[in-house]
Amino acid sequence: MNQVNEILDMIGIAGRNQDGSYTRTCFSPAYFDAVEIVQNKMEELGMETEQDAAGNIRGILPGTDPSAKSILIGSHLDTVPSGGLFDGAYGVAGGLAVVQRLKEKGERLCHPIELYGFNAEESNPLGGTFGSRAVAGLISPNQPNLAQALAQYGRTVPEIMSCRRDFTDAKCYLELHIEQGDHLCNKGLQIGVVNGIVGIIRYKVTAIGHSNHAGTTMMKNRKDAMVGMAQLIVDADRCCREIDDTLVFTVGVIRCWPCSENVIPGRVECTFEMRHMDRSKTDALFQAIEKLAAQIPSVQFEIEKTIDKGSVCCDGTLMHTIETAAKMCGTTYTVMPSGAGHDANPMAHRLPIGMIFVPSRGGLSHCKEEWTDPEDLRRGVEVLYHTVLSLDAES
Amino acid sequence: MNQVNEILDMIGIAGRNQDGSYTRTCFSPAYFDAVEIVQNKMEELGMETEQDAAGNIRGILPGTDPSAKSILIGSHLDTVPSGGLFDGAYGVAGGLAVVQRLKEKGERLCHPIELYGFNAEESNPLGGTFGSRAVAGLISPNQPNLAQALAQYGRTVPEIMSCRRDFTDAKCYLELHIEQGDHLCNKGLQIGVVNGIVGIIRYKVTAIGHSNHAGTTMMKNRKDAMVGMAQLIVDADRCCREIDDTLVFTVGVIRCWPCSENVIPGRVECTFEMRHMDRSKTDALFQAIEKLAAQIPSVQFEIEKTIDKGSVCCDGTLMHTIETAAKMCGTTYTVMPSGAGHDANPMAHRLPIGMIFVPSRGGLSHCKEEWTDPEDLRRGVEVLYHTVLSLDAES
Repeated sequence: MNQVNEILDMIGIAGRNQDGSYTRTCFSPAYFDAVEIVQNKMEELGMETEQDAAGNIRGILPGTDPSAKSILIGSHLDTVPSGGLFDGAYGVAGGLAVVQRLKEKGERLCHPIELYGFNAEESNPLGGTFGSRAVAGLISPNQPNLAQALAQYGRTVPEIMSCRRDFTDAKCYLELHIEQGDHLCNKGLQIGVVNGIVGIIRYKVTAIGHSNHAGTTMMKNRKDAMVGMAQLIVDADRCCREIDDTLVFTVGVIRCWPCSENVIPGRVECTFEMRHMDRSKTDALFQAIEKLAAQIPSVQFEIEKTIDKGSVCCDGTLMHTIETAAKMCGTTYTVMPSGAGHDANPMAHRLPIGMIFVPSRGGLSHCKEEWTDPEDLRRGVEVLYHTVLSLDAES
Repeated sequence: MNQVNEILDMIGIAGRNQDGSYTRTCFSPAYFDAVEIVQNKMEELGMETEQDAAGNIRGILPGTDPSAKSILIGSHLDTVPSGGLFDGAYGVAGGLAVVQRLKEKGERLCHPIELYGFNAEESNPLGGTFGSRAVAGLISPNQPNLAQALAQYGRTVPEIMSCRRDFTDAKCYLELHIEQGDHLCNKGLQIGVVNGIVGIIRYKVTAIGHSNHAGTTMMKNRKDAMVGMAQLIVDADRCCREIDDTLVFTVGVIRCWPCSENVIPGRVECTFEMRHMDRSKTDALFQAIEKLAAQIPSVQFEIEKTIDKGSVCCDGTLMHTIETAAKMCGTTYTVMPSGAGHDANPMAHRLPIGMIFVPSRGGLSHCKEEWTDPEDLRRGVEVLYHTVLSLDAES
């Protein structure tokens, strides 16, 4: 079962940087190098393969029962710039390792297995989880600027529309992924049985004060957008911690105008992002932020929602199957939400989903320090393997 | 005495933007248009003129006494991008109006008058007050990158060194300027007799945390450089207000890394600027900031001083002469520091300086809303005129 490490290293040949990080941004040559590696491996394992216009690769291992629906397994092959080896690629390598084990044991499943390597899951000009959204039929042809954004990758809107899959012959979707957080690592647990993917709400928050001379404007006469925004960030951060342990709040982007050392900023723009499984928690934080903003004197705030992705739940029966598999493999596990979005998110709109997490050392991801121990990688594949066998034993 | 408004409008032809703002950045064609307008006016008034390699224009009105030292008057002709009509240009126009009045009255002074229109006073790649620093001989030929910075304006280091003036034949330097703050405007006063120019201390402050995933990293495990920096800004702002009424603190520039909506910033850089006449006040604020920074958990701060301009004092005798002139003109006035740097700052290294302020409506400057009433402009010139007459009456 150490195949998964070998396969992962093989995929890692594509886009490996000198500093040990990996760059396989969507539609890049390095991304397609990874697709080719995966496609070759799929074919070596007896799978039928096809690439679609969205850059996704799919391998199909036929089942013995023509009426049995497909078990879908997948994750993504693209990375953030200077990302790690494991994010995404582990799920695809894990699927390949399961198929390889079936082959080595000479086991034939009733159900077909379909293994997806998705493109463009990471943040990109087309929006994240683009490849899986194309397969799930969640891309609207009327999305503003879609045609222009696709043109830079040499793709057209009708081509992307054609990637939509018919899910009537699909049973469920499974995704194996590194946690990218520190919950399993801190608790010393081996497996996370994911119960859902948190919702993401994002706002553009603008503080509007009055730009003025940094030397001649006395403190009491200032309408300093920078100080106003700093106060709101500090207040919102404290408030988030008070509402719920697992609610998160992030200001990842900040810009100020006129951005000159000797001028009081008249305008500061930030992104405010909040994530939680339970909508009422993010709502509570937003309402608190609105109140806090109103209490900051001398600066006006404009708050505009830019992203509102609802949380999705994993299928209860699939969770139970995964838990049973984890027990059977003798692993320690916990039920937990995913703080990150995944390809499972769009797939959840079409069929039951299940996700298996393995620990990320130090909770690090999207960087070259991203790491999961080989033994943990192996264990995740083992749980996936037994989950697939259990599902195959169902009608 | 309404000449000053006419002359100011004439200078304003150079670099006027469609939106009513003015852009005459240093060494730009629009800047040299202003120089040409001023030079023509100087020659029309019987002054000998010369431009130097730093882009400064000087007009000399000869005196009747060959042994009498020159009375220098000056300010700058460059503007910030999209600045106002009055900042700098008013001082040059005011000097021209004084010479015009002398000519119209047929009065000849014992002392020569030298009127400077300086270049590059505003923030620029050569450093602010570049033109007056060149005249005062305060540019070091060994300043790093000076030659490259000058090359973009087609100038060389030896050319700039040649701009240095010998001050043995100079009596004093006077500068008429808009206040650029709201002190006179708020108090309903007509003239500010400047007692000094505040010191400017600037730091680059870097918050170093740990970049991580915005969804999977729980709040209690974060080392969020953005929240840490926001806390320091809020604390420093409060602290500044506690130390002294006239101490000012500004964060004009902020940048974060990796600057992605879904990543906790691992690094945030800001400029922290503080100004006051009294060094002990800025020192007190800096020490407080260092202590506050050390108290912010989970983020490390690096603080590097980038600018340290000491405050300069105006000459007591000149201040008395200006006050007497203000009284004689029947204006209301106050003694006050300048929160902004001026060309008077470098000149103070070489000879006694005096400055006269007129009110800025709403304290606005460096923007198209910058405004001073014509009557206030006229009054400022009147005070300058009588100051010059008093100085000429001295030996």
